[in-house]
Amino acid sequence: MIKQRRTVFYLSDRTGITAETLGHSLLTQFDGIDWEIINVPFLDDLEKARLVLVQINHAIERDGQRPLVFSTLLQPEILTIIKQANCRVFDFFETFINPIEVELNQPFARMAGRSHGLQHHWSYFKRIAAINYVLAHDDGVNPKNFADADIILIGVSRSGKTPTCLYLGLQYGIAAANYPLTEEDMPALQLPKVLENVRSKLFGLTLSAAQLHFIRQERRPNSQYASLVQCQQEIQWQESLFRQFNIPYLDTTRISIEEISAIILNRCGLKRQLYG
Amino acid sequence: MIKQRRTVFYLSDRTGITAETLGHSLLTQFDGIDWEIINVPFLDDLEKARLVLVQINHAIERDGQRPLVFSTLLQPEILTIIKQANCRVFDFFETFINPIEVELNQPFARMAGRSHGLQHHWSYFKRIAAINYVLAHDDGVNPKNFADADIILIGVSRSGKTPTCLYLGLQYGIAAANYPLTEEDMPALQLPKVLENVRSKLFGLTLSAAQLHFIRQERRPNSQYASLVQCQQEIQWQESLFRQFNIPYLDTTRISIEEISAIILNRCGLKRQLYG
Repeated sequence: MIKQRRTVFYLSDRTGITAETLGHSLLTQFDGIDWEIINVPFLDDLEKARLVLVQINHAIERDGQRPLVFSTLLQPEILTIIKQANCRVFDFFETFINPIEVELNQPFARMAGRSHGLQHHWSYFKRIAAINYVLAHDDGVNPKNFADADIILIGVSRSGKTPTCLYLGLQYGIAAANYPLTEEDMPALQLPKVLENVRSKLFGLTLSAAQLHFIRQERRPNSQYASLVQCQQEIQWQESLFRQFNIPYLDTTRISIEEISAIILNRCGLKRQLYG
Repeated sequence: MIKQRRTVFYLSDRTGITAETLGHSLLTQFDGIDWEIINVPFLDDLEKARLVLVQINHAIERDGQRPLVFSTLLQPEILTIIKQANCRVFDFFETFINPIEVELNQPFARMAGRSHGLQHHWSYFKRIAAINYVLAHDDGVNPKNFADADIILIGVSRSGKTPTCLYLGLQYGIAAANYPLTEEDMPALQLPKVLENVRSKLFGLTLSAAQLHFIRQERRPNSQYASLVQCQQEIQWQESLFRQFNIPYLDTTRISIEEISAIILNRCGLKRQLYG
């Protein structure tokens, strides 16, 4: 089957994160389309807007179908220019801001950069502090500070602990530590000593042995460490450990870092605030 | 002035990232409201929906005003229950999905978890590879691999290089290295030797001396390193260096990690794809 080719523009006064998040969410609900994605962040003057208009009209010539445009533009003059192009505009602000004005009984501020801008200094510093905590407590380093962690991820090598901790720190300001379960721990079915006093903060990450094997092959091809048998044994062992010590855990085989993070926060009842 | 107290619910079948990003974008346009934020991710059965209904009705009793509800729920049965509550629902899918169906001339898939799910294995591995690159090339480590970097951030200690690199890696899959400009480099107005062959990849981060002073005080209170005079000298020196060698740079004093990252990608013409 030949995929339909369509172009989508994400237009924004600022970072474009909101426009792209919204559009991506919607478009992933449609299969069989080969999307050409064009991001235009910082679209804040009329000259740039006229260039985008030309670009949109080129896209329709190429695709034979008009492009979709997701916009969070705040300046009406810019939006007016874009609407002269042959495209279908989905304007996020225009759609929702007026009903919210009515509901809150006040006009909106029409100021760009509020969403991803630096409104709250304290939240900026909280994020930076969380990232510093994550970096200083990666891979079992500094376990003496584990009492300060919001959460401690545990799992075998390459189970996704580090990226998940970084995401938790960057996006949610969570002080996330992680500790590797290693082959040396395997003979004894017990928790490493340094984790005994922080059991309530532990959360396990597991995955299929096949995927672990695939990931480890990338790192050290054809090693004992990467062998499927070794991966099977380690996974089986760690899952027994999680069950025995009643440690909540998650199979991350088919889910993204965003989902892993959201599930962990949800299960642990950690207060979340998404930054960015 | 006493702030109006209102409650906002973010409801989602999955992570809630889309609902929260969109709602936050809109609500930051309204001042003078003290928001109570309630996230309900993974709202995927009727029993949970009935509990949320009760919670929404409690909120109106407490606030004296009905709550706002931002939803990306896909299951109509769940949305139907929520709509029985006394609240104002802004439903992102319902609003946009039908016009997009018309435009694309096909029905949507109604499958949760597509946006932040693991649709593309290769993009997952690209992100992980980027994060590993960032971690292995933080703070001037392994400069022999700088040729593989998509970008190399430079700046004095605590200018925000590490968080920005991590964000670029995690959210955009960019291989971002960073290299510190240190006091020892100061007497000579020239680039550190290891950067000479990668000049086209350099991007400078600067900030106000006052903010640098504030950040360094947190780290080493009342040290020479943190003194305002020292911060002023280092900032003045690095900005001269950036100008002399024609290195693009950004003053990050009042902007967030998201904005810094989006501006860098935009100025350097790096192809971006937002993950998550």
